[in-house]
Amino acid sequence: MDKANFLSWQSRLHKTIYESDTPAGKAFDVALLIFIISSIIVVMLDSIKSYHYRYGHVFYVMEWGFTGLFTLEYMLRLISIKRPLGYVLSFFGFIDLLAIIPSYLSIFIVGAQSLLVLRALRLLRVFRIFKLTHFLTEIEFLKISLVTSLKKIAIFMLVVLSLVIILGSIMYLVENGENGFTSIPDSIYWAIVTITTVGYGDIAPVTATGKFIASLMMFIGYGIIAVPTGIITTEMANTARMKKQGQEVCPGCGREGHDKNAVYCKFCGTLL
Amino acid sequence: MDKANFLSWQSRLHKTIYESDTPAGKAFDVALLIFIISSIIVVMLDSIKSYHYRYGHVFYVMEWGFTGLFTLEYMLRLISIKRPLGYVLSFFGFIDLLAIIPSYLSIFIVGAQSLLVLRALRLLRVFRIFKLTHFLTEIEFLKISLVTSLKKIAIFMLVVLSLVIILGSIMYLVENGENGFTSIPDSIYWAIVTITTVGYGDIAPVTATGKFIASLMMFIGYGIIAVPTGIITTEMANTARMKKQGQEVCPGCGREGHDKNAVYCKFCGTLL
Amino acid sequence: MDKANFLSWQSRLHKTIYESDTPAGKAFDVALLIFIISSIIVVMLDSIKSYHYRYGHVFYVMEWGFTGLFTLEYMLRLISIKRPLGYVLSFFGFIDLLAIIPSYLSIFIVGAQSLLVLRALRLLRVFRIFKLTHFLTEIEFLKISLVTSLKKIAIFMLVVLSLVIILGSIMYLVENGENGFTSIPDSIYWAIVTITTVGYGDIAPVTATGKFIASLMMFIGYGIIAVPTGIITTEMANTARMKKQGQEVCPGCGREGHDKNAVYCKFCGTLL
Amino acid sequence: MDKANFLSWQSRLHKTIYESDTPAGKAFDVALLIFIISSIIVVMLDSIKSYHYRYGHVFYVMEWGFTGLFTLEYMLRLISIKRPLGYVLSFFGFIDLLAIIPSYLSIFIVGAQSLLVLRALRLLRVFRIFKLTHFLTEIEFLKISLVTSLKKIAIFMLVVLSLVIILGSIMYLVENGENGFTSIPDSIYWAIVTITTVGYGDIAPVTATGKFIASLMMFIGYGIIAVPTGIITTEMANTARMKKQGQEVCPGCGREGHDKNAVYCKFCGTLL
Repeated sequence: MDKANFLSWQSRLHKTIYESDTPAGKAFDVALLIFIISSIIVVMLDSIKSYHYRYGHVFYVMEWGFTGLFTLEYMLRLISIKRPLGYVLSFFGFIDLLAIIPSYLSIFIVGAQSLLVLRALRLLRVFRIFKLTHFLTEIEFLKISLVTSLKKIAIFMLVVLSLVIILGSIMYLVENGENGFTSIPDSIYWAIVTITTVGYGDIAPVTATGKFIASLMMFIGYGIIAVPTGIITTEMANTARMKKQGQEVCPGCGREGHDKNAVYCKFCGTLL
Repeated sequence: MDKANFLSWQSRLHKTIYESDTPAGKAFDVALLIFIISSIIVVMLDSIKSYHYRYGHVFYVMEWGFTGLFTLEYMLRLISIKRPLGYVLSFFGFIDLLAIIPSYLSIFIVGAQSLLVLRALRLLRVFRIFKLTHFLTEIEFLKISLVTSLKKIAIFMLVVLSLVIILGSIMYLVENGENGFTSIPDSIYWAIVTITTVGYGDIAPVTATGKFIASLMMFIGYGIIAVPTGIITTEMANTARMKKQGQEVCPGCGREGHDKNAVYCKFCGTLL
Repeated sequence: MDKANFLSWQSRLHKTIYESDTPAGKAFDVALLIFIISSIIVVMLDSIKSYHYRYGHVFYVMEWGFTGLFTLEYMLRLISIKRPLGYVLSFFGFIDLLAIIPSYLSIFIVGAQSLLVLRALRLLRVFRIFKLTHFLTEIEFLKISLVTSLKKIAIFMLVVLSLVIILGSIMYLVENGENGFTSIPDSIYWAIVTITTVGYGDIAPVTATGKFIASLMMFIGYGIIAVPTGIITTEMANTARMKKQGQEVCPGCGREGHDKNAVYCKFCGTLL
Repeated sequence: MDKANFLSWQSRLHKTIYESDTPAGKAFDVALLIFIISSIIVVMLDSIKSYHYRYGHVFYVMEWGFTGLFTLEYMLRLISIKRPLGYVLSFFGFIDLLAIIPSYLSIFIVGAQSLLVLRALRLLRVFRIFKLTHFLTEIEFLKISLVTSLKKIAIFMLVVLSLVIILGSIMYLVENGENGFTSIPDSIYWAIVTITTVGYGDIAPVTATGKFIASLMMFIGYGIIAVPTGIITTEMANTARMKKQGQEVCPGCGREGHDKNAVYCKFCGTLL
């Protein structure tokens, strides 16, 4: 009896923490989201020196409060799941642990507290929570479009990477290691800043040849910024058309052509 | 008789001020547009110090002139509408009030006049005025495309926001609070400047690790700038195709599939 | 006899200068292109101080040489056309005149020679010349796509313009006329630099509120850069589809739906 | 016998070095890739001064090691191919030679070693190697899309080039050769930096007119960045549609409409 009771208690806890289709589950998710955002805001404000000097002790207490709450949440997650080790080793399990460890480390190691910024990674839980609401189809749409265009984007990125290494190296020669082009890695950093049209201006060509090569790179960057856009737009249009025609597109591998009554993708076995 | 006269006078005024399909209405709208633009130009010029010292008194007189005209317009709008409170509490009513208040406030509070820049918000009336001309279908087209892609854009923006918070926090750790990365909010500001490819260069990484992470961010920014473009292009192509096929798309919620004889959207009740 | 001879001479000259489907016409166009580019390169090199001091006299002679040639060309154009005034008042006639006037002006006015840079405008003739070659369909394609999307782009630009005026004015208030935001026009200039993701960094927000608003603007700029791309891509896809289906699209107004045997656009009368 | 043996040995070597469908060929390609990347990393690290002073001699030995390996590879390539001169004069043959020459040159000429950065060009071999794996269809797709849009992109680039020359020249006049606009080429460099939205900020307009023209240029750049994107997206969508319909698109000239049983492109003769 007691064991059954415990199991039902555990199962209800699991439903509340891991799912969100019950009122309690929704309340838990919203509360968690608020705590995550609050804890990040506190870490942020504490990093501003003038605030740190004035309200440092308040932030200190709050940070320990959040650490306590997140530790409690971590423990509840552990006891309410069947295979706790699976959770601990999962991506979100790792991030959840990362969010509480720095506080405890700071007792032994001075400065470990600054690692609290890693708590920002917990923000990613937002998508987990949103996933279960009415944004599902939009997330699915974006996911499929990106998955199917990944290979093309990868090749494109490889081309750009080769380009910045080659052009960065050449600029190192041309500017003769001066004007900020102090080493090849620095020149490659400059080439990336230029080709992505960010253009900080912390390093900029000074010699005429350097300016000419830089101009060429900008034109190249201007032209090829169109390529990833073209790839993704084409895939999105394709995904949208598929969906309209009622054809299933596999969310796992992005391939189509499944039978009407198919339940699993015939290429990668993902549940359709 | 007098009352009927007054009513017909009020109704004609309403037509002139609020609509623009009569010659008087068009003249009013064009005159209003000219006054709005002129008043904004005067505020602009007055903000340039050398002009302020030389022509300050001229601008002063002109500003009061515009304030008088806009006050008159505001009053006419109030008396020619059936439910004046509805106008006062509406978006444009609020902006119209915001355009005249600073002048009167400046009598009591020194410096309140600088709030006159809020007059720039009146520029938004341009779209109200244009709406009634032959740009209607284009505005409608852009509106539908943006409304239908809003959800996808929102999710995308959430991803980017999480990304800049996480990467900004990590850069704060990496650059150790130096080289402009003085606090987490500042580092996040830098991350936004970088990922949107604006790249002021007021804050730029100095350490090798910082430059490496920054390069990574630029590549990410370069790749994902394609996502909103893909979303909006796909929706626009969809809207254009719908329109060509004579299918109605609801201007309110962007959904389609309405019957040929439908007058209201069957999903949100907007007039088709 | 003499008159007929003269007329035939004039007509042959016209063919050579204004058209390019004869060997002589092609040779003239290519020679003209080489002279235009050479003259621009000379003006460019002359603007570099070190070159000016060393080769200034060579450039001087060459500039007068080009001026002589272009004057001769201008005269030949005048005498070989039926209505010389029409040419003089045309766009290209005006630019052709602009290319030779500064040299003659420099005799009377010191420094007028610097206006020679306007010769760069003659580069636009390149498109005139290319128009008659095998790039015709591509130019037509781009032209139709841009003409049909002009209205939507115009509205979009109006939105962006209102946005930068409003946000620039607000930033002037927020940064309190300091940190480079010295006047509203300067703040609007900064807003344009930011929203177009150029980001010089000559003016950058310093206050926390300023940075927050700037971050907001960058996100807006990031999102809406997708709009013109979406508009033009949609129109291009449309133009491409039309062309494939053999339907004529008017190069003048971009509208379609003409009859198979139509010679003129039924909407604007342009030759199809 | 010996000769046949030699030939078969040569043919097997050719298979290993030039192809990658045998286990030995794959191993060779992967090893080559690792050596190329390692050699580039060594050149990179050696360019950082602090590393150069500490590990300079280690890098020196490694560079000679890589030079030896690449020389051996070059020789093997020479003896295993039927027409060695064809390889020597080919694009990749030239780059392969360029990768080993600087080391030998450095014996005679001081500083020639810095040309080792040209080894980065060998990175391009990555695509040769990848070409033979499962990325083939994606590379083909990108290639066809870019080839077919090349003409339109060329015209677009010509327009942008004319624009930056004209606007750069005008800015030189407006800013009067000051504030970094010291010559027309420098002003054109600035115009390119601005219109491609890179925006270093090393040169920035100071005068009111200059800022106004710069703002105009940014708006133009903002608008026309959409053009190459539109061109490439349209071509990609077209290529994707063709492929889906099973129609062959020539990888050489990008034209379509080939017969089902066609083996060569009927327009340019490329193998389909």
